[in-house]
Amino acid sequence: MSEDRGEHFVQSLERGLAVIRAFGAEDPELTLSDVARRTGLTRAAARRFLLTLTDLGYVRTDGKQFALTPRILELGYAYLSSLTLPEVAEPHLERLAAELRESSSVSVLDGDDIVYVGRVPTSRIMRVSINVGTRFPAYATSMGRVLLAALPPAELDAYLARATISPLTPRAIDNTDDLRHELERIRTQGWALVDQELEEGLRSIAAPIRDASGRTIAAVNVSAHASRVTAQDIKDTLLPPLLQAAQRIEADLTRAYNQR
Amino acid sequence: MSEDRGEHFVQSLERGLAVIRAFGAEDPELTLSDVARRTGLTRAAARRFLLTLTDLGYVRTDGKQFALTPRILELGYAYLSSLTLPEVAEPHLERLAAELRESSSVSVLDGDDIVYVGRVPTSRIMRVSINVGTRFPAYATSMGRVLLAALPPAELDAYLARATISPLTPRAIDNTDDLRHELERIRTQGWALVDQELEEGLRSIAAPIRDASGRTIAAVNVSAHASRVTAQDIKDTLLPPLLQAAQRIEADLTRAYNQR
Repeated sequence: MSEDRGEHFVQSLERGLAVIRAFGAEDPELTLSDVARRTGLTRAAARRFLLTLTDLGYVRTDGKQFALTPRILELGYAYLSSLTLPEVAEPHLERLAAELRESSSVSVLDGDDIVYVGRVPTSRIMRVSINVGTRFPAYATSMGRVLLAALPPAELDAYLARATISPLTPRAIDNTDDLRHELERIRTQGWALVDQELEEGLRSIAAPIRDASGRTIAAVNVSAHASRVTAQDIKDTLLPPLLQAAQRIEADLTRAYNQR
Repeated sequence: MSEDRGEHFVQSLERGLAVIRAFGAEDPELTLSDVARRTGLTRAAARRFLLTLTDLGYVRTDGKQFALTPRILELGYAYLSSLTLPEVAEPHLERLAAELRESSSVSVLDGDDIVYVGRVPTSRIMRVSINVGTRFPAYATSMGRVLLAALPPAELDAYLARATISPLTPRAIDNTDDLRHELERIRTQGWALVDQELEEGLRSIAAPIRDASGRTIAAVNVSAHASRVTAQDIKDTLLPPLLQAAQRIEADLTRAYNQR
């Protein structure tokens, strides 16, 4: 796993976290051998980490199968509860979702991905299941494009140089030149519309959330089924309340930080 | 931190996880000294763990202040995405929340706490902010009481023997005898109503979610402001759709497991 790490590097921590990440959607229960195979650890090492996590209450076992426990949410929860954004945004997402009867979310950029940090779903079910913590490649989503469009030029160039665009639907942008062009448009117009590029039948529109200094720190979106709303409907009907919600979140964020 | 641990115990992992948990709602940014103080580690040890977490992308720093990054959600996300329950329950929570215009959640028991694993909020804002991963003492909540009421007798006795009841509002049950009596009633009637015991002005009603073998594995609730609905309204209006949603979730869970 780790190579060329500094002297400070605690390899046991890296390995323990890799054991946690070995558990995933497909296989909630893993044997010792599964964990060893997925992490590249020896069976003896995998066993030590699994038993340590069991002692700490993060893993449960019947002696053969291991699974994560809900306590593991503590770790992400420390981050979520430390963020002012989800708490400040939530009432605005709720209002937006109730008013438009569509799902609304906030995301931040983490490396080349967006990560959902807040979401108010509606009863229109999407094929893609999205939770707080869900990651998508930034280029494929309306929120990601808003966040990419706000990067300083040098950072955006570096991103485009390293990005591998894997279009997820036939309509999706499939090369960095087109993506760069679209990001320039988004920067000028102040919002991003993604029309069935993440998922067939799904349209989404996003706007930036800026801090008091004008730096974009997050994005907010509304997504809707293509069968219900045309791309024009989205611009006419969903965009104005979305931009208003973004402004209100910005105002509340500034207030929240000033109160600290 | 660790005492009397087995030979397998990897103390570095325990300490690294404690460093993650040191970050919380009050102080999203911590100095090295803060982390050392909160974890009981030496400054040198705290530094090694913080820098390791920074190398791994879970912590960011400006050299002085440290903060968690969104990547930390990966750890809890492995657990959440491994659960069938939140995904199966979500459309039912959405339907319930839309129909009743009240927030709806699912929780599981983890030790003596409930942990929220799914939630659909509405635009009626509560003072207590609740996310996936939020924990409450089981005895203080409607979902917790449903889950406690379903414990095998020996486990319930052990819980009541060790539980310290700290009533959170003047109306709250404040002793284990009353709690035991209430849990018996809940077991018989099949649902739990908590009337302003977790928070003044908040009423909540919960029902068990059982697996195909009849074992209670989770609870689902609806919560409402006391100013909007009386305790009687909750029983008349919210309980029937709640019980129906619980049944639908159970049916979908059984289907999901059979498809595996």
